[in-house]
Amino acid sequence: MSYVKSLTCKECGQNYEAKAYHVCEFCFGPLEVSYDYDAISRSISRESIASGPLSIWRYRDLLPVEGSDYVSLGAGFTPLVRAERLGRALGLDDLWIKNDTLNPTGSFKDRVVSVALTRARELGLKVAACASTGNLANSVAAHAAWANMDSYVFVPANLERAKIITTAIYGGNLIAIDGNYDDVNRLCAEIASEVPDWAFVNVNVRTYYSEGSKTLAFEVAEQLGWQSPDHVVVPVASGSQLTKIHKGFNELYRVGLLDKEPKVRISGAQAAGCSPVASAFDQGVDVIRPVKPDTIAKSLAIGNPADGYYALDIVRKTGGAFGSVSDDEILDGIRLLARTEGIFAETAGGVTIATLAKLVKAGVVQKGEKTVAYVTGNGLKTVEALAPTTGPTITVGPSLDGFFDFLNSQRRSSK
Amino acid sequence: MSYVKSLTCKECGQNYEAKAYHVCEFCFGPLEVSYDYDAISRSISRESIASGPLSIWRYRDLLPVEGSDYVSLGAGFTPLVRAERLGRALGLDDLWIKNDTLNPTGSFKDRVVSVALTRARELGLKVAACASTGNLANSVAAHAAWANMDSYVFVPANLERAKIITTAIYGGNLIAIDGNYDDVNRLCAEIASEVPDWAFVNVNVRTYYSEGSKTLAFEVAEQLGWQSPDHVVVPVASGSQLTKIHKGFNELYRVGLLDKEPKVRISGAQAAGCSPVASAFDQGVDVIRPVKPDTIAKSLAIGNPADGYYALDIVRKTGGAFGSVSDDEILDGIRLLARTEGIFAETAGGVTIATLAKLVKAGVVQKGEKTVAYVTGNGLKTVEALAPTTGPTITVGPSLDGFFDFLNSQRRSSK
Repeated sequence: MSYVKSLTCKECGQNYEAKAYHVCEFCFGPLEVSYDYDAISRSISRESIASGPLSIWRYRDLLPVEGSDYVSLGAGFTPLVRAERLGRALGLDDLWIKNDTLNPTGSFKDRVVSVALTRARELGLKVAACASTGNLANSVAAHAAWANMDSYVFVPANLERAKIITTAIYGGNLIAIDGNYDDVNRLCAEIASEVPDWAFVNVNVRTYYSEGSKTLAFEVAEQLGWQSPDHVVVPVASGSQLTKIHKGFNELYRVGLLDKEPKVRISGAQAAGCSPVASAFDQGVDVIRPVKPDTIAKSLAIGNPADGYYALDIVRKTGGAFGSVSDDEILDGIRLLARTEGIFAETAGGVTIATLAKLVKAGVVQKGEKTVAYVTGNGLKTVEALAPTTGPTITVGPSLDGFFDFLNSQRRSSK
Repeated sequence: MSYVKSLTCKECGQNYEAKAYHVCEFCFGPLEVSYDYDAISRSISRESIASGPLSIWRYRDLLPVEGSDYVSLGAGFTPLVRAERLGRALGLDDLWIKNDTLNPTGSFKDRVVSVALTRARELGLKVAACASTGNLANSVAAHAAWANMDSYVFVPANLERAKIITTAIYGGNLIAIDGNYDDVNRLCAEIASEVPDWAFVNVNVRTYYSEGSKTLAFEVAEQLGWQSPDHVVVPVASGSQLTKIHKGFNELYRVGLLDKEPKVRISGAQAAGCSPVASAFDQGVDVIRPVKPDTIAKSLAIGNPADGYYALDIVRKTGGAFGSVSDDEILDGIRLLARTEGIFAETAGGVTIATLAKLVKAGVVQKGEKTVAYVTGNGLKTVEALAPTTGPTITVGPSLDGFFDFLNSQRRSSK
């Protein structure tokens, strides 16, 4: 059974049946899933959740599906880590890291893809598809393989070999397009309208897909002992994830799982080389001007973010802020997280940590706030970004003398 | 408090205090941790474990530590996945995958390093060290960073750049040695005897380190609802992991956590390019003849395995078998696992799956047996092994025609 009432246009409020629709026929606004929260309140409890699986599906009543035949590799319920060492380095007393590097294919995309393909199958769509240059491609190919669905993943032909392999390994159709990512995206939009029985996860089933990100809020609240944090820092690509984290905390209160109304300040993190939302925030304007991305944080490189406006609005309303960081700062952020917490994040995680550091210095994130930073992808996926600046401490010959000369000089210099 | 009684020589039975000893002074045999199982039986229960952390430390009474100040990134309690699709492909009705790719640094080494460094710190050793070409290096550097311990990780200077980066990122000392892995190993043995206050995790604290692998049995039994499987397939490098999985199941019964005495058949998986234990098994001899490794499964490439004899003995006693597989079969194993279960394993995982397939064909692993295959490392770590054979399905221009020509020809050919 499903608690979904309808799909509702975020702009004009028009309601639609819960089918594979994603934009309003009247105003072209994006659709959002509406639930019967009173009914959910009667069925859900902290205990019912605790007895559920160790995955996003423990929150199924708050997800837009009808049955329990999930397309699931086990995404979610990743560790929420008390980051004492990183907190000390940044001057924060109560810092936590949501370590979403430990999802089945190494990024938070497993959450949204699991929801999208579960719903797609319920709607009778039998083919999974997407355009992507990385994390989404991995996740769609892996989930489709598991679910025995055909898949078509579209990538630019000049993509790094490693990213080709980490998608091709799952054995679906990997279509390399002679063109850049914009060409691939445009082509996919055209293909999607030709094959309405396919589930392009972030096109025609995007309304369901994006709901998966709410679990990033659900888990944090549960892992904090059913309380909401004071402040969260979220990386911003399309902006969807940030808006859904906001929605997630509010839903928990609405259905009675939180005793106190959440007052979570939400801040957004972008790479300086692709910071259209952060720029609008800095300039105090509502219009998000598209940019041409130029950053090592490729998983955040969306120059014209679909949900940028909504993310901006939420950050302003909750008293958060936006920050943006350079490529060098991103690499410093990756290193700092690895060297304090032993967590190796992809470039997007470097954006989050470096932005957090900036927001602390600016007085936005405050020392005593219970703060959660979302680290959403595994560093093994973007090793090449570190290649120019990361190497051995020293290279020596295979003799005791060689090593102890180094050790003694190191000890002298540390005195 | 600790339930450790002593360290006991596996050969002559001599007992030692639980200090940083790893070989018997009398016969040079390896030492093994002995516990007071009666005392553990009185303290441990299924309920006490269920209320513990979602990591290896939920089994702390059966681990060789005194306190609860763990060096922990959260290793363990990884998913045990019902592998219906892979089972169907192989002809098995009740197959499970222990997905240890989802450890903090992407391999089972996090289990043993967490135990080794926790005990090392209890013994007053303040520096973490190891020789490694991959997974162990990552794990030692990450755990040491988290624990604020100095670390010295020794690698061959010609190691792949990606493996240098995934260790260096954690910021300890990464010492590149001009020489091959044997040179590095020999040098480390020499260094270890010069600096007895360092914890070389697989040298002077190896006795504790290896106990961490017992958790691979503990978790499987708990995740199966406190029963032991009928058959497990374990990759074999030094052989230690296989012996500890055997020990783990038996300990659970000894302390009252299993109702029935476990009768687990244990089979071992090796790469044909480094199969000294499998060869001894095939030849029906007890002596393991060292080999010079030549395989893409580098994390299993130990030509002179320290615990090979014990692993061989256990496989024979439990009615299992050994199998070995070629590099091509390893790659096929990786692909098969990815395409059926959506799990991307490193080359060692390919060895396990390909060997499992072989053992099924040989009638060793039987259709109805509840079988668990241990997949111990993440495929993102050995992407390069797949590069020569993995690519896009097709490359086409950025037009609808290009794609639909491909799609139509694909549909025609599948009819």
